[in-house]
Amino acid sequence: MAFQFTVTHNDKESAARCGAMRLERGTLQTPVFMPVGTQGTVKTLAPRELHEAGAQIVLANAYHLFLRPGLDIIQEAGGLHRFMNWDRPILTDSGGYQIFSLALLRKIKDEGVEFQSHLDGNRHFLRPEDIVDIQNVLGSDIMMPLDECVAYPTSRDLAEKALARTTLWAGRSRERWQESGRGALFGIVQGSTYDDLRERSAAELKAIGFQGYALGGLSVGEPQDLMYNMLRSTVPHLPAGSPRYLMGVGLPEDILEAVSLGIDMFDCVVPTRYGRNGTAFTSRGKLTVRNGAFAHDQTPLDPACGCYCCQNFTKSYLRHLFNAGEILGLRLVSFHNVCFFLELLAGARQAIREGRFAAFRRDFEKEYFCASTS
Amino acid sequence: MAFQFTVTHNDKESAARCGAMRLERGTLQTPVFMPVGTQGTVKTLAPRELHEAGAQIVLANAYHLFLRPGLDIIQEAGGLHRFMNWDRPILTDSGGYQIFSLALLRKIKDEGVEFQSHLDGNRHFLRPEDIVDIQNVLGSDIMMPLDECVAYPTSRDLAEKALARTTLWAGRSRERWQESGRGALFGIVQGSTYDDLRERSAAELKAIGFQGYALGGLSVGEPQDLMYNMLRSTVPHLPAGSPRYLMGVGLPEDILEAVSLGIDMFDCVVPTRYGRNGTAFTSRGKLTVRNGAFAHDQTPLDPACGCYCCQNFTKSYLRHLFNAGEILGLRLVSFHNVCFFLELLAGARQAIREGRFAAFRRDFEKEYFCASTS
Repeated sequence: MAFQFTVTHNDKESAARCGAMRLERGTLQTPVFMPVGTQGTVKTLAPRELHEAGAQIVLANAYHLFLRPGLDIIQEAGGLHRFMNWDRPILTDSGGYQIFSLALLRKIKDEGVEFQSHLDGNRHFLRPEDIVDIQNVLGSDIMMPLDECVAYPTSRDLAEKALARTTLWAGRSRERWQESGRGALFGIVQGSTYDDLRERSAAELKAIGFQGYALGGLSVGEPQDLMYNMLRSTVPHLPAGSPRYLMGVGLPEDILEAVSLGIDMFDCVVPTRYGRNGTAFTSRGKLTVRNGAFAHDQTPLDPACGCYCCQNFTKSYLRHLFNAGEILGLRLVSFHNVCFFLELLAGARQAIREGRFAAFRRDFEKEYFCASTS
Repeated sequence: MAFQFTVTHNDKESAARCGAMRLERGTLQTPVFMPVGTQGTVKTLAPRELHEAGAQIVLANAYHLFLRPGLDIIQEAGGLHRFMNWDRPILTDSGGYQIFSLALLRKIKDEGVEFQSHLDGNRHFLRPEDIVDIQNVLGSDIMMPLDECVAYPTSRDLAEKALARTTLWAGRSRERWQESGRGALFGIVQGSTYDDLRERSAAELKAIGFQGYALGGLSVGEPQDLMYNMLRSTVPHLPAGSPRYLMGVGLPEDILEAVSLGIDMFDCVVPTRYGRNGTAFTSRGKLTVRNGAFAHDQTPLDPACGCYCCQNFTKSYLRHLFNAGEILGLRLVSFHNVCFFLELLAGARQAIREGRFAAFRRDFEKEYFCASTS
């Protein structure tokens, strides 16, 4: 089945929009949040819990899975979906970001990137074509090409060089993908924090042509305003009829701002990472479960939430689980947080469809930022 | 509702039997395995998973919960059942064993036991009456009295003194329980590895009168044969019409032997502790998930098992989860193991009812010990 993206509703007061993204394993309703399952598991959660939470798609990471367990094992299992028992779409990140942040002794050449595994020190050399091949073996529904991700801040000169290489690799990835013809392939806009470089990157990727366009190299430490400005200056240069994916973002407020600027897809480790640390996202703001104030609190994390955690457990009990080092605590708060993010995006979609996104966002933020929960 | 225990079936070839134990929150079918939730959670598992696994009752520990989160918090929650969201019966261990194994600088007097918390070093003095009161606050369906548990091996003299104190405390516990009148109270037979002391302990407890009788101080490092001998010599001295509980046991083979000797109740941390370490119990024996042999094994832990783990995940994937340090691995193997133990006891009950317990046990052991899985 061919990839298809249809914008179904446009917000009148902002660039926010709803869409339907048809993939082989299901049609995504956008804007969509994608829980992150880097190593083939969304941390602490079982696939049936992701279904229950309403996850339409999850993310996995080609670099991590290539190194461990290795492609032969996933191929024997019949692909990543069967390996991890997830029957809905999977987007795989290329791992470019991980190669640049985790791997050791990397050497970047136009041909590809040489690095040592962060797990065992073994040397690998991967070309952009290899990264497409890896994702083909995984059976990704949406693939990301190898890109060169620069840190923040980066000089204009370095950002320009990384951009040029990213475009070069994007073209070669596109060619390889064209031969294999499975799933969808997105382009990744780079250019650090330079408006004109972002614009150039977008133009070059458009010229190559992808099913969707991702904004990479953001949420890497730059001030929030700067990220928002990059979205404002970049999104208008992306095709209106293609999905736009803001990689690695983010907090609820960042997501709503980005939705209003026309972003369709998000992924972030925040719900599960914060969950494992005992920080819960609620309609009344973030809440630190270990906080002594909750020792006697016999109410749920979020009385407005219908998830299994909030329907069955109190803050007092969750605090006890964290204090006692019990894994059920990590599980329940992670689950609640994933539900919260998915519910936030479901609410945003509904509001956009009904022409009341601005009010939805205002109400959410009023409650989220003004209420004091911890 | 008054406690009631009815033996419904007696095996013709052994002392094995089936019974029904009526408690306020449900009737237990015995022989029964009780998953251990020391700190108010069966490690890694949610209550709904325990329901799914078929758990009739879980264990919790009065000593641990008294120290953390503390009784005030559990009282505010409306008792332990509501605190941990478990609506079926709970048996609480007194924590005698933990005071003697975990706590620091303990002083044992006839009046009670003084100790320092293993968590914060705070001093506590608890009398047997306090232990009953604590379990009343928890809302235990079955309470255990404070006992003096000796290590293995122990001299006859020390074992005799501990026995005398255990009887003294049992009587005072019974009096306190009589006043408060909730749930059931069991007596704990001590006497180390001395037949005649075990017999004396059983006689003294019978004279006091309890709803059920537990065998304590076993599975503390003594050889397996010695434990079996203690069961053979002690069980005949316990009332046939009362439930018999072998504390802290054990491995599948120990449980089946003990069932054949007339034991009705078991608890053990083995399914979850082994599960967290990546050891699975299967119909074909124990299996170490991390074993390299399973890297490419695309079959479930136990093809004979119908649990969520075995129906949806392969050994290859579970091995990956353990290698990658992913919590889902601990969860899935713990869940499978709890299912395995509960299924083993369900099978034993069915076999006893149908008069084929010896064959059931022989078939189980043949498969369990002769098949090589890892």
